[in-house]
Amino acid sequence: MNWEELAKTLVQPTDSKIVLLVMDGLGGLPVNGLTELEAARKPNLDETARRGICGLTDPVFMGITPGSGPAHLALFGYDPLRFQLGRGILEAMGTGVEVGREDVVARGNFATYKDGLVVDRRAGRISTEENARLCDFINHQIKEINGIKISLYPGKEHRFVLKISGSGLSDALTDADPQKEGRPAVPARALQPEAQFTADIVNRFLEELKMALSSEPKANYALLRGFSKFPSHLPAMPDIYQIQPAAIANYPMYQGLTRLLGMEVLEVGPSTEEIFEVLEKNYHRFNFFYLHFKKTDSAGEDGRYEDKIKAIEEIDHYISRLWELKPEVLVITSDHSTPSVLKSHSWHPNPFVLVSDKAAPDEVTHFTERDCRRGSLGRFPSLYAMPLMLAYSLKLKKYGA
Amino acid sequence: MNWEELAKTLVQPTDSKIVLLVMDGLGGLPVNGLTELEAARKPNLDETARRGICGLTDPVFMGITPGSGPAHLALFGYDPLRFQLGRGILEAMGTGVEVGREDVVARGNFATYKDGLVVDRRAGRISTEENARLCDFINHQIKEINGIKISLYPGKEHRFVLKISGSGLSDALTDADPQKEGRPAVPARALQPEAQFTADIVNRFLEELKMALSSEPKANYALLRGFSKFPSHLPAMPDIYQIQPAAIANYPMYQGLTRLLGMEVLEVGPSTEEIFEVLEKNYHRFNFFYLHFKKTDSAGEDGRYEDKIKAIEEIDHYISRLWELKPEVLVITSDHSTPSVLKSHSWHPNPFVLVSDKAAPDEVTHFTERDCRRGSLGRFPSLYAMPLMLAYSLKLKKYGA
Repeated sequence: MNWEELAKTLVQPTDSKIVLLVMDGLGGLPVNGLTELEAARKPNLDETARRGICGLTDPVFMGITPGSGPAHLALFGYDPLRFQLGRGILEAMGTGVEVGREDVVARGNFATYKDGLVVDRRAGRISTEENARLCDFINHQIKEINGIKISLYPGKEHRFVLKISGSGLSDALTDADPQKEGRPAVPARALQPEAQFTADIVNRFLEELKMALSSEPKANYALLRGFSKFPSHLPAMPDIYQIQPAAIANYPMYQGLTRLLGMEVLEVGPSTEEIFEVLEKNYHRFNFFYLHFKKTDSAGEDGRYEDKIKAIEEIDHYISRLWELKPEVLVITSDHSTPSVLKSHSWHPNPFVLVSDKAAPDEVTHFTERDCRRGSLGRFPSLYAMPLMLAYSLKLKKYGA
Repeated sequence: MNWEELAKTLVQPTDSKIVLLVMDGLGGLPVNGLTELEAARKPNLDETARRGICGLTDPVFMGITPGSGPAHLALFGYDPLRFQLGRGILEAMGTGVEVGREDVVARGNFATYKDGLVVDRRAGRISTEENARLCDFINHQIKEINGIKISLYPGKEHRFVLKISGSGLSDALTDADPQKEGRPAVPARALQPEAQFTADIVNRFLEELKMALSSEPKANYALLRGFSKFPSHLPAMPDIYQIQPAAIANYPMYQGLTRLLGMEVLEVGPSTEEIFEVLEKNYHRFNFFYLHFKKTDSAGEDGRYEDKIKAIEEIDHYISRLWELKPEVLVITSDHSTPSVLKSHSWHPNPFVLVSDKAAPDEVTHFTERDCRRGSLGRFPSLYAMPLMLAYSLKLKKYGA
């Protein structure tokens, strides 16, 4: 039996509230002996560690570096090896694109193509307005191919979503993306014979787009990644857990993912304070809150060690507002690690703290990678975060007689 | 999805190097309060613990005592419950016997039979030369039975490999071995109806062998164990992990196993120093090295507590030569525990240390059973050793978007 099935038989609806704050890419590696978390002044996060029980989580399993999708799925109680989501569907959800059961979507980049090579995979990061103009232009130029409807939806800067609609489409395609600059463009390839029709449509679309944009100085080509269909096998969180979940996340991908999982996505601006304002304003309306803080990951991805420290210190300032709400369960953790020295996601486990009046605090007094590993939760898969949150908020009945 | 399949989608070939030193049967139990590892003077192993991250591994799962085969399979990333290898095939590989897809092999012992009882399961440990003479003699006396070809290959002392070749053979047989001395000989029994033909051949062979050796003073009978066929389902390590692996192991079984897994088996003599010499000499040719040290297990099996301490102290002397090579990942651990007080393999977990510049050292300062359990890796299945080694040497890409 898997956890979602077990959960359905054990959950009981209660008014108790769960607040889950995900500091994206929080875990790091030492620079001059200290990780970002160890170097940051963060009295409130440390006090949270003092009040709660701590541990370290592995998103998939030891050694595996997860993308944001699998890492978040695990935190929400979905086995990241059983539930796999294409980047295209996540981007589409985040951009607010309605995806039908037969549609295929992909994440697109406008790019610069020159002398047979992709020379800039982001077309010089064109403006969001320029992007909207180009998508509108293409939508007028290329309405359909072989009876399949083509639609572009602009995102931020150079990013867009491609949706192709019609019957007989498959998402078993390789990316039409050389991955690195200075390489020739690559077509999408069918991974199964039945995907050949879709591959032909996609590659024909890319040819027509190239012709249509031939006079553009920068955005004269496009790359397509993460072809995917709506994940109809994905159960919704309210159905599995009998909770009313809300997401407070500013980035399209996390909005897209949480919408797919049946959370209500609340409007929130880019400032850190707004995360807490939106939480406070909507606290009476839901009983599960997912708060997403991106700056730790962005700084890590760019290798900005000092900025990652600052991001931790910035959010630390607001942590006491979480205590004041007195949720039955407060969890602060991360989806995956993003050490500044690696400039990328990594396999290192995530610090995790859970505060509940049903949890006797352990001896951990600082919220860091090295301190959390001495916590009473030990090292465990992220997949157990959801059972723990439900249990400590008394939302799970006894298993067996 | 299982790890080998996942690994195939995530691995990326790099030049980074991994050195895995297996101190066979390392873990022990206290005598006068100290385990063998705790009693040994081992400054270099302790320094390695100080530089790395530590943990304890369970080869199969908590409480399960593994044979050398499953314990090593787990360390190399093969689920020991899914991949099962007969002792016969391991012995055959180690002895250099070519095994065809239809052949059945078994591990043989010459034994002493008297008045209907097996009185010495090793025939007084006859010499290797005597063994070769006897195998040659039997090969001339018994060439085939019912159209099935019979071949004996001599090993060390009383050990040989029996290979039977022909069609319709099965390895679903019980051992033809009473396991203890002073008991009657037992025939091989078919575990499935289709194995009856093979059982009849084997038992007929034992009868003919007994007659042929009736005038021998010691080696007048044989025991057969671990009937097995070639494991055609076993993927090779270079195919799964895109690494160039080499094995530095002096014992036939470990050579056999690693050859089966697609490692290149490097010639090495019996002295401890040679392990390190062969490593240094071949360091440029491969990027994964498995080093096998047997003395800890042999001493444990014989209940020689002091000798096990000496074996640890002996290899400790060479550990700094591993540091000097500066591999991207160095792991020192064991396949299973062999406490001297038990005189056998045991279920106790293995000390584990991993050194990498991508791993922030934990507080463990001594490489012992009790210290390693406070390490940042916690307690984990040996199956995760391979994902960890690949991750820390940057040989794994991100999973999912």
